[in-house]
Amino acid sequence: MDTTSLQQSFMKIRSNKAFELFVVSIIILSAILVGVKTYELPPAVFTLITWFDHFITFIFLSELIIRFTGEERKRDFFKQPWNIFDTIIVAASLIPIEESDMALIGRLLRIFRVLRMVSIIPELRVLLNSLIKALPQLGYVMLLMFIIFYIYAAIGSTLFAHINEELWGDIAISLLTLFRVMTFEDWTDVMYETMSVYSLSWVYYLSFIFLTAFAFLNMVIGIVVSVIEKENAKEEELHNHEPSMSDLQKEIQELKAMIQQNQSKQ
Amino acid sequence: MDTTSLQQSFMKIRSNKAFELFVVSIIILSAILVGVKTYELPPAVFTLITWFDHFITFIFLSELIIRFTGEERKRDFFKQPWNIFDTIIVAASLIPIEESDMALIGRLLRIFRVLRMVSIIPELRVLLNSLIKALPQLGYVMLLMFIIFYIYAAIGSTLFAHINEELWGDIAISLLTLFRVMTFEDWTDVMYETMSVYSLSWVYYLSFIFLTAFAFLNMVIGIVVSVIEKENAKEEELHNHEPSMSDLQKEIQELKAMIQQNQSKQ
Amino acid sequence: MDTTSLQQSFMKIRSNKAFELFVVSIIILSAILVGVKTYELPPAVFTLITWFDHFITFIFLSELIIRFTGEERKRDFFKQPWNIFDTIIVAASLIPIEESDMALIGRLLRIFRVLRMVSIIPELRVLLNSLIKALPQLGYVMLLMFIIFYIYAAIGSTLFAHINEELWGDIAISLLTLFRVMTFEDWTDVMYETMSVYSLSWVYYLSFIFLTAFAFLNMVIGIVVSVIEKENAKEEELHNHEPSMSDLQKEIQELKAMIQQNQSKQ
Amino acid sequence: MDTTSLQQSFMKIRSNKAFELFVVSIIILSAILVGVKTYELPPAVFTLITWFDHFITFIFLSELIIRFTGEERKRDFFKQPWNIFDTIIVAASLIPIEESDMALIGRLLRIFRVLRMVSIIPELRVLLNSLIKALPQLGYVMLLMFIIFYIYAAIGSTLFAHINEELWGDIAISLLTLFRVMTFEDWTDVMYETMSVYSLSWVYYLSFIFLTAFAFLNMVIGIVVSVIEKENAKEEELHNHEPSMSDLQKEIQELKAMIQQNQSKQ
Repeated sequence: MDTTSLQQSFMKIRSNKAFELFVVSIIILSAILVGVKTYELPPAVFTLITWFDHFITFIFLSELIIRFTGEERKRDFFKQPWNIFDTIIVAASLIPIEESDMALIGRLLRIFRVLRMVSIIPELRVLLNSLIKALPQLGYVMLLMFIIFYIYAAIGSTLFAHINEELWGDIAISLLTLFRVMTFEDWTDVMYETMSVYSLSWVYYLSFIFLTAFAFLNMVIGIVVSVIEKENAKEEELHNHEPSMSDLQKEIQELKAMIQQNQSKQ
Repeated sequence: MDTTSLQQSFMKIRSNKAFELFVVSIIILSAILVGVKTYELPPAVFTLITWFDHFITFIFLSELIIRFTGEERKRDFFKQPWNIFDTIIVAASLIPIEESDMALIGRLLRIFRVLRMVSIIPELRVLLNSLIKALPQLGYVMLLMFIIFYIYAAIGSTLFAHINEELWGDIAISLLTLFRVMTFEDWTDVMYETMSVYSLSWVYYLSFIFLTAFAFLNMVIGIVVSVIEKENAKEEELHNHEPSMSDLQKEIQELKAMIQQNQSKQ
Repeated sequence: MDTTSLQQSFMKIRSNKAFELFVVSIIILSAILVGVKTYELPPAVFTLITWFDHFITFIFLSELIIRFTGEERKRDFFKQPWNIFDTIIVAASLIPIEESDMALIGRLLRIFRVLRMVSIIPELRVLLNSLIKALPQLGYVMLLMFIIFYIYAAIGSTLFAHINEELWGDIAISLLTLFRVMTFEDWTDVMYETMSVYSLSWVYYLSFIFLTAFAFLNMVIGIVVSVIEKENAKEEELHNHEPSMSDLQKEIQELKAMIQQNQSKQ
Repeated sequence: MDTTSLQQSFMKIRSNKAFELFVVSIIILSAILVGVKTYELPPAVFTLITWFDHFITFIFLSELIIRFTGEERKRDFFKQPWNIFDTIIVAASLIPIEESDMALIGRLLRIFRVLRMVSIIPELRVLLNSLIKALPQLGYVMLLMFIIFYIYAAIGSTLFAHINEELWGDIAISLLTLFRVMTFEDWTDVMYETMSVYSLSWVYYLSFIFLTAFAFLNMVIGIVVSVIEKENAKEEELHNHEPSMSDLQKEIQELKAMIQQNQSKQ
């Protein structure tokens, strides 16, 4: 059996619906195993799970090999980020980690297998791609928000560090405290504590809440507007094959010229 | 009196405005009874309520029979989901439950009679239908969000189970804890506890909050966009009977051809 | 001096800019007085404030009389809801309440004078009117939400009343508790308490949060869509004086007919 | 070397990309210094930071002088608000503050240097300008919301001051408490306390939450609509060079007139 026919038969398997369904069900099984492992289990069940684990690793490896062999140009395979992700997940599962220290890392790595659900279902892949595409758009608003956070954290740790070391000890802790204030989580407790020393410190909190809420609002509106703009552009394109008003005007003017020529001839 | 005339007279009752109003007021009465029953009541009032209850059951049963008899094709009656809902509610009310154990279930069933308000008022029925229609649209975002929740819950119960068994004991409890974190309900208490063991665990919480907030934002925007698209499509349809630009261009070009033909003839 | 000239001179005063500014500044003064009165005050200041209070009542009364006298048709004056509101506020200020029991009510009534700010500034009046206009639009969603609340409150007080009488004692208290859960205010404390008895009661809370959040989301989107529709309708109207595509097509077809007639004549 | 050539060479430096990058990196360095200073530092590092501080002040001063000298008309320099901001920041850094009392103010002033990030990056400047432009649009809604807050605070401090002096003592504290209630931060604790005296006081809180939430919702929708309107206006302008339907109709009618003239001549 030569390589080309093997490749072709693998390509067939790859695009087979039943094969896809089988892989999805294996991923769901691996996700369930991840969940089951968080419970206290009798040793017998634990051994069973370990066997299942090896079985899933084997299936994933086989699937990867089939997909890779079925690819016409081997280089193109690693151009798709999801294939790289799958390869890393499978490769990490193959490393034997038995020692107690590394066992935790091994368990954590196995959790990320659930993410293969995203790599296998096209709709989720599209959704995630659109999420990632929306990120740079938010770039400058995020930077502006970080500057606001940074300045407030610097002021906070300068003024309030001696009041509560755990909340305002240094700029890193202050950033975390400010994030907490932004989520409104017990923010009044934080405020009342500093107000007992600096009675005007409510200005600090209220201005911070207004600034971040306002910046956030603007961010959301920015996204909505850009989304609407894209929609409009799409619709515009749909009408692009249609002649424009100017085109019609030109044609009518040509008509006029023809009739005038006609008149002068007579 | 033959069946057809009975059916016709029942159809008349069914579409009678006064009959509809009477049923609505009975439903409101049953809703008030449901509320009254949650208070401590003297035995006399309780007996009265029980009688009212039987009376409402009787009215509901009569109304259902009238509506069913008034239907031309009996099969069509059960094709409408709201009719099935009404039948189940009425049938459940008929089962005599006197024992103390079942009494609770009986009381709970009677509460769902309030939902008949939705089945009787057309505007609410339309509203609920539109809510249900919006659900599948959210399907994949919900799945993506569940995957994020599941992975974080698996990581959480792997890393933090030994810190607080009640919050991170297994994956189910962890999912509940993460839902709590998403609603910002005392999430810092949860975070500070794990940070006292793993000082970097704020990364876990902040990344989770950003991911879910971002996914949620996208979901909302997705709905807004799809709603706007639908509006645009509706408007497009309104203009559909209008000729397009291309139609006009074609007609003008026909005109030109006619004039040219005219010229060549002369 | 006859009545007509008095009326005309009062109409002049009414539409005078300086008079309007004076009234606005008096309202602001009355708002400041309302604020000042909440502080502990020395008796001298208190006497001063009481005098100011009488002075403001006098100004308000004079202004009302001027506005009323300046109205051409006396009946029209009370057709405007803001005039009725102003009259009630002024009339209530005139009732002498000196007894300690009624003094509180008198103070509360004087607070509502601040609302005259809304009745005097046209932009705020427009804003409030648009807010009130948006209300009926929300009617059915509010009703649906109330039904959801009512059913959950009935279930809650039936199942959880014996766990915590203060949170689930009767349907009214349960409604308040559910509103608290909807605002995410310490909702986990409420849940953990009932979960210690019914371990599955998280289903109750989570389904409630999803239902209300989903209904709320739909409400917001509903408003956005109706606002966009209105905008579109406004724009449509702007283009209404423009001929439609069909008009143009008709004219071109008339042209064709003329040319054809021309050809047949030759 | 005469002044003009000096100005021109400074103008060159000013628009030099490398110079800009250098200034940005100095600003980032100053931001990092601001952060580092919030940690406990050994004296050696502290001395180093002080030197860095002087160095940054020197660079900022030089940059400002270069920018000012490079300006053709000296008056125009201070017409740009960001230049005024930069000058104040640099001038404040030059004042020698060594005493312990003033040292705190000196440290706080240095924090605002981070804001120079906004003044130097054009994209952030644009973003901030658009944020500031959106503010007046919100003016009247903010005023309406303040009136609601003020009235509720006045009522609150009149009725509840004797229950909890710390939350409802005077109108200023009451405003802060109401802001807390609006953010849903432990608002039920505040409510339950007053409900133990006035059992109907839940009406106060619920009506306040509904009013502010409703006003806020309206504000957001107002912004979205105005943004959409602007987008539509922009698009309209794009199509402005296109002839309108009326223009086309006019041309077709001219055609008709020409043909009719033609016919009558024959």
